[in-house]
Amino acid sequence: MPRLLKKMSKKIGLPPGTLVHIGERKVEKVRITAIDYDEANLEERELATIEECFLFRDSPTTTWINIDGVHDVDIIEKIGKHFNLHPLLLEDVMNTGQRAKIEDFDSYVFVVAKMLSYDQETHSIQAEQVSLVLGKNYVISFQEQPGDLFEAIRERIRKGKGRIRKGGADYLIYALLDAMVDGYFLVLDHIGDIIESAEEDLATNPAPQTLETIRMLKREMVILRRFVWPLREVIGGLQRGESALIQKATGIYLRDVYDHTIQVIDTIESLRDMVSGMLDVYLSSMSNKMNEVMKVLTIFAVIFIPLTFVAGIYGMNFEFMPELKWEWGYRMALIVMGSVATGMLCYFKRKRWL
Amino acid sequence: MPRLLKKMSKKIGLPPGTLVHIGERKVEKVRITAIDYDEANLEERELATIEECFLFRDSPTTTWINIDGVHDVDIIEKIGKHFNLHPLLLEDVMNTGQRAKIEDFDSYVFVVAKMLSYDQETHSIQAEQVSLVLGKNYVISFQEQPGDLFEAIRERIRKGKGRIRKGGADYLIYALLDAMVDGYFLVLDHIGDIIESAEEDLATNPAPQTLETIRMLKREMVILRRFVWPLREVIGGLQRGESALIQKATGIYLRDVYDHTIQVIDTIESLRDMVSGMLDVYLSSMSNKMNEVMKVLTIFAVIFIPLTFVAGIYGMNFEFMPELKWEWGYRMALIVMGSVATGMLCYFKRKRWL
Amino acid sequence: MPRLLKKMSKKIGLPPGTLVHIGERKVEKVRITAIDYDEANLEERELATIEECFLFRDSPTTTWINIDGVHDVDIIEKIGKHFNLHPLLLEDVMNTGQRAKIEDFDSYVFVVAKMLSYDQETHSIQAEQVSLVLGKNYVISFQEQPGDLFEAIRERIRKGKGRIRKGGADYLIYALLDAMVDGYFLVLDHIGDIIESAEEDLATNPAPQTLETIRMLKREMVILRRFVWPLREVIGGLQRGESALIQKATGIYLRDVYDHTIQVIDTIESLRDMVSGMLDVYLSSMSNKMNEVMKVLTIFAVIFIPLTFVAGIYGMNFEFMPELKWEWGYRMALIVMGSVATGMLCYFKRKRWL
Amino acid sequence: MPRLLKKMSKKIGLPPGTLVHIGERKVEKVRITAIDYDEANLEERELATIEECFLFRDSPTTTWINIDGVHDVDIIEKIGKHFNLHPLLLEDVMNTGQRAKIEDFDSYVFVVAKMLSYDQETHSIQAEQVSLVLGKNYVISFQEQPGDLFEAIRERIRKGKGRIRKGGADYLIYALLDAMVDGYFLVLDHIGDIIESAEEDLATNPAPQTLETIRMLKREMVILRRFVWPLREVIGGLQRGESALIQKATGIYLRDVYDHTIQVIDTIESLRDMVSGMLDVYLSSMSNKMNEVMKVLTIFAVIFIPLTFVAGIYGMNFEFMPELKWEWGYRMALIVMGSVATGMLCYFKRKRWL
Amino acid sequence: MPRLLKKMSKKIGLPPGTLVHIGERKVEKVRITAIDYDEANLEERELATIEECFLFRDSPTTTWINIDGVHDVDIIEKIGKHFNLHPLLLEDVMNTGQRAKIEDFDSYVFVVAKMLSYDQETHSIQAEQVSLVLGKNYVISFQEQPGDLFEAIRERIRKGKGRIRKGGADYLIYALLDAMVDGYFLVLDHIGDIIESAEEDLATNPAPQTLETIRMLKREMVILRRFVWPLREVIGGLQRGESALIQKATGIYLRDVYDHTIQVIDTIESLRDMVSGMLDVYLSSMSNKMNEVMKVLTIFAVIFIPLTFVAGIYGMNFEFMPELKWEWGYRMALIVMGSVATGMLCYFKRKRWL
Repeated sequence: MPRLLKKMSKKIGLPPGTLVHIGERKVEKVRITAIDYDEANLEERELATIEECFLFRDSPTTTWINIDGVHDVDIIEKIGKHFNLHPLLLEDVMNTGQRAKIEDFDSYVFVVAKMLSYDQETHSIQAEQVSLVLGKNYVISFQEQPGDLFEAIRERIRKGKGRIRKGGADYLIYALLDAMVDGYFLVLDHIGDIIESAEEDLATNPAPQTLETIRMLKREMVILRRFVWPLREVIGGLQRGESALIQKATGIYLRDVYDHTIQVIDTIESLRDMVSGMLDVYLSSMSNKMNEVMKVLTIFAVIFIPLTFVAGIYGMNFEFMPELKWEWGYRMALIVMGSVATGMLCYFKRKRWL
Repeated sequence: MPRLLKKMSKKIGLPPGTLVHIGERKVEKVRITAIDYDEANLEERELATIEECFLFRDSPTTTWINIDGVHDVDIIEKIGKHFNLHPLLLEDVMNTGQRAKIEDFDSYVFVVAKMLSYDQETHSIQAEQVSLVLGKNYVISFQEQPGDLFEAIRERIRKGKGRIRKGGADYLIYALLDAMVDGYFLVLDHIGDIIESAEEDLATNPAPQTLETIRMLKREMVILRRFVWPLREVIGGLQRGESALIQKATGIYLRDVYDHTIQVIDTIESLRDMVSGMLDVYLSSMSNKMNEVMKVLTIFAVIFIPLTFVAGIYGMNFEFMPELKWEWGYRMALIVMGSVATGMLCYFKRKRWL
Repeated sequence: MPRLLKKMSKKIGLPPGTLVHIGERKVEKVRITAIDYDEANLEERELATIEECFLFRDSPTTTWINIDGVHDVDIIEKIGKHFNLHPLLLEDVMNTGQRAKIEDFDSYVFVVAKMLSYDQETHSIQAEQVSLVLGKNYVISFQEQPGDLFEAIRERIRKGKGRIRKGGADYLIYALLDAMVDGYFLVLDHIGDIIESAEEDLATNPAPQTLETIRMLKREMVILRRFVWPLREVIGGLQRGESALIQKATGIYLRDVYDHTIQVIDTIESLRDMVSGMLDVYLSSMSNKMNEVMKVLTIFAVIFIPLTFVAGIYGMNFEFMPELKWEWGYRMALIVMGSVATGMLCYFKRKRWL
Repeated sequence: MPRLLKKMSKKIGLPPGTLVHIGERKVEKVRITAIDYDEANLEERELATIEECFLFRDSPTTTWINIDGVHDVDIIEKIGKHFNLHPLLLEDVMNTGQRAKIEDFDSYVFVVAKMLSYDQETHSIQAEQVSLVLGKNYVISFQEQPGDLFEAIRERIRKGKGRIRKGGADYLIYALLDAMVDGYFLVLDHIGDIIESAEEDLATNPAPQTLETIRMLKREMVILRRFVWPLREVIGGLQRGESALIQKATGIYLRDVYDHTIQVIDTIESLRDMVSGMLDVYLSSMSNKMNEVMKVLTIFAVIFIPLTFVAGIYGMNFEFMPELKWEWGYRMALIVMGSVATGMLCYFKRKRWL
Repeated sequence: MPRLLKKMSKKIGLPPGTLVHIGERKVEKVRITAIDYDEANLEERELATIEECFLFRDSPTTTWINIDGVHDVDIIEKIGKHFNLHPLLLEDVMNTGQRAKIEDFDSYVFVVAKMLSYDQETHSIQAEQVSLVLGKNYVISFQEQPGDLFEAIRERIRKGKGRIRKGGADYLIYALLDAMVDGYFLVLDHIGDIIESAEEDLATNPAPQTLETIRMLKREMVILRRFVWPLREVIGGLQRGESALIQKATGIYLRDVYDHTIQVIDTIESLRDMVSGMLDVYLSSMSNKMNEVMKVLTIFAVIFIPLTFVAGIYGMNFEFMPELKWEWGYRMALIVMGSVATGMLCYFKRKRWL
């Protein structure tokens, strides 16, 4: 599970725009790939140095430059200089503790969001910050590490499937965001499964581990919410078409992603409701269990305490105890005990404790 | 009860507009019916192939094409092509995990909503996604399976009762939405009954099953809310009359459905308040019960423990215990025990435990 | 207490505007009265048939037609036809499960609200739906049954007290709404009294009945809220003076009722806060009580269990137990027991359990 | 502590504008004082009859008429007639159950608010309704009883300290509101002290009285909130300078009071958070205590029950019990008991119950 | 931890604009420093008297006057007079119980905010009020005591690093606010650490101290929230660029601080969610523990109570008890006891209590 907070201490005291990497360094060597395409042509390359990608900047074709690894100040700085990006933007790219946001710098639009995936092995949500820069005919994407949800998009570009080769850079950024939002659905699918099995546990046999699961789910909900709510504003901002870089035709697609984001939020809120209801149910069934334990104890104690008392009386060593001498004394004592026990049982029956 | 989440995984990685059925396939063969009518004429047909319905498109009469089953890509695609519907719209039709929404594509309006009914046998809410396309003089409705709440509307069309034959396509879509909202009232009626009987149980004899009922009600509230809240926006959007396809005269009727939706929301919120209050009451009465159990245990223990102790003393085998030799020893011991018990009972009376 | 939900099932499947009575039929025979007045003249009549009231429609004097009983389709339909009222309006009049609302039909304004009173005998809130139609110089009021909060207004009309005879139809509708809002204050007065006495019970001797009262209060709050919140919008709508039927001079009076409505809402919210606080306090004092019970049990058990054990030891029948032979054995055993008990008591003192 | 609700029943059924005193009559005789001043002159008088103050109305100097006691219909009516005040305004002055509000009657502005003070002796908040009428060059203040927070203002007027003699009527009303808001701070100071000492009690020795204090604090918070929230709108309304009676220069001072009101609200909300946190902590520590009590009971019971059982076995009177004849029988029994007890103690140590 | 409330009582009754120090006097002697710079020159001085700084006012270079200590009425008054500051502003500077706010006085802008730091030794948040006045080419900062988060900014000015020497007074005020918001991140880092270790304690071994930590965290959250929420409005107000004193180019930097503030708020809200979840978990595990204690007690009691009863029976002294004479009586009694115990253990196994 991602930590809620990234240590910000490194950055404190530095002038704004200073490039410092904040977050965990997830990859050793930065990997840069570029895809350059239009309807007719396609060129895909892995670049050895960042300078190679500068050729693409002024070409009329759409270029997608993808950078895996954001800890290398030098590379970030060079890209910034070449594409004329604002220092504060570069600072945000390197600070992986960002909130999803959109910033319009007139000649380019900057978008930050979290890409989520669910790690089946550790049963935890993996979050990675993705920063996107949309320029006139290029998109630059910065990721923390290789491996992403964009493979299907690359495949579509390669095969020319769908609108993607015709759509330009704004359609590309839409496709990237769409893939990221789809990733949220996948994560929610997994969480939904966990919730359902936890609900079943709760109904059949609530145990302390169930509590642990609920606690973990609550925590994940807090984190997911924190990632998704600002994303809504981001995509809403793009969709409202305030930037000249977004074409009308792409707007309808962005509305679609926007609807998906709303659906994600909606689902998270419903799941939150369910998880918080689960805690109530857990506490109630704990209280039920305790009640039952108490009843068992009480029934035993209340039946046997008077019997033991009667036995105690006739265990006294007084010399003058006439009952002890009676031939039927013992049997009578047993009968008295039996009827006390029966009376108690009837009392509990009436109280519906049995 | 409907699942909260539909698995989205199937769709991930596909280009937008790809037609994939998401949800449970509830019917084997798609059934298509068409009703074509104006004030004077009426034609009702079950169609063997989707192509048959294309005749109706350009006729000046109002046509209602109803399609039961949304899993057949081929049929959906053909309709889409013929009526010139946007691929994203068709994708939404086939994805049954939609949130209620309205989208205005200028020459037609697209509405998605959930149709609810209450299954008396399984005591559960049945939800089915209904997609409506309102064109100039046609309405296309997509349902997941045959059987719906629209039979009364068909009857009204056949018999020419009310305004429906004069009202045009926009009045028809109003009538369909009205019937769906009426379905919500029916479901709420049933839930209201369950809540009332659960409240009675709670007052007379709260049991773990009551807790189970409360939990189920809470869950259903979460789901209902999720269906109804966006519906308000949908009908509000239609009513505000932004689309040229909605006539002024229909507006007043839409305002009426809108009021009903508000009333549904209002009722859901009130029921939610009541259900969440029920859990509090349940916990309180559990705590009351436990208190009572504890009191019974304590009263018995506190009365008999000292008595048994006294009996224990005179059960000791010391050789030199003068009381054992006294003629009145046994009787005195009994009197001491009796007065200790009486004292205890008085103490509990004063404490109002009896 | 009014039910939260009226059964809507009757109406489902019928075309909009179909007149069906929804709710409980509270009166057998519909009673119609009319008061026709201006500054100089006054005529008050009980009408045998609805047709009699049609004379008043076009007179320049202000006419108030009051109808007690809304289940008679025939009467409602005739009024509707004569005063040219929309079928949806008539439908709403007969459906007593309405939410308070205002609808402006240009030539008349339609207002629905709940009239509340407090039944001292059954200690419950009585709710009755009142529908008001404000026309150019008439007000038609529909009530579910005879008996209302308007007697003082009739008296004022008869005696010509205050502005009422000069004020016209819009002042009359204001007066009716004012009387209804005053009714809310009366109900809140009663509820406030119940809350205060429940709070006192809670402080002195919380019992399961207190819980029952709290539960009932919570429920009533839910219902009251549901009645009052939409009323605010209704009166706000009237006051904003969007309808030509409301004169400027009446506006200031409507602002006054509006303020009262806000005050009612405010009070309900505060009472809600108090009631929900009461549940917390109830639970806390239950937990306190349980704690006390547990302490009593523990003190007794912990003191006597070791003593009984000592007695048990010297009750054993081993042949070789030297203590039993000692002359001072018994006394020493008693001394040991006494000091164990004293030690325990000191321990409890230190723990502040005594 | 002020009651949450004033009985409204008296007023019901009366025509609007009827003057009825609602609330407790806190003073027998109405006391009227007037201060008339400008930069150069000052006249301060206690008036025997209300008519005396009418002289001041048309003078160009600023006049502050203060009336202590609002139950005398005659006086209120005379003032109303002379200063030409609306009957609804006069009704509000006499009804001490008002919510803070501002009403702009063009030629004068009407403001109602609560003046709070903290009674050190009864440890309770005292609330008094103050109604202010701001006219062209007069302010009329209505209070329920003599004694207020305005003495410092009178002193400033007398001594001509600060801007007050130059400021006109609008500055005067600002000064009065400022004094009232300062009163809220004083009350919050006291409540803050109570909360802090209650928190300390909670940390060291939570007792049922602490619960009582928390309950009282919660109640006071409800009431305070109810007084302050509408006050914000009142002062905001004045400050926005919509009335011609408020000069530009006074606006900056009103903004200052507005800031103070926000600060009061802010503080109330924070205190509310803290108080509601206190209840949680109280419940938690109750539960902790119960846990500890249970542990003590369990430790004693679990150690001694098996020992007593062993003693019970050798207390049986069977003729053939070989152990009883052994010479070392008694000692072995004691050793067995000792090791059982030791084992139990180890078990508890491992469970961290000791 | 800072107190929630500053005593306001001192100020009550004084005319507005009266200079009174509210808060704790944290430093004896006021210390005044001035830095005057432009791109080329730099002058830094500690001033003996406040009059020395007046030279800087009209110079075209940017001047930053910093005053440590706000209790000295004389100094504050002199600065106010010289820089022509409004008396209400000076009053706010001296009252350290301010809420963060911005006020635009046309020729200067006044900003108040809290500077937070985390004291590692006392493990508590330190809050200090900072008031900033932004004039045409000067910034005056008032702090309660020496020592602040601005040392890095001074260093940047001295060394001419970054934009700061070119940026003018508005860039300087941005830099100061940025440093203060960075301080919030540092505090949140510390709190995040505490929360994480508390969560671990909760999972492994919840103890009353954990409750104490949760309570302290909750309290700190309340205070932090109270500081940060208004700060958002302050920076938002600056950024929206309504004042002519803020240059366009600085706007983008202010947007950055604004984003940081949002992130701080976001983090606080998430931490709040987590902390309030922790209390629930604490209560649940307390209830779990109690349950376990109860089970242990019940198991022991329920097994041994019947056995002791059996032993009690054969400890009775009746003369005629045939079993006592049987040779196998003792062994049979032991066998009976053994099977009762075994039966009980099976019962508990089935109930999953073991």
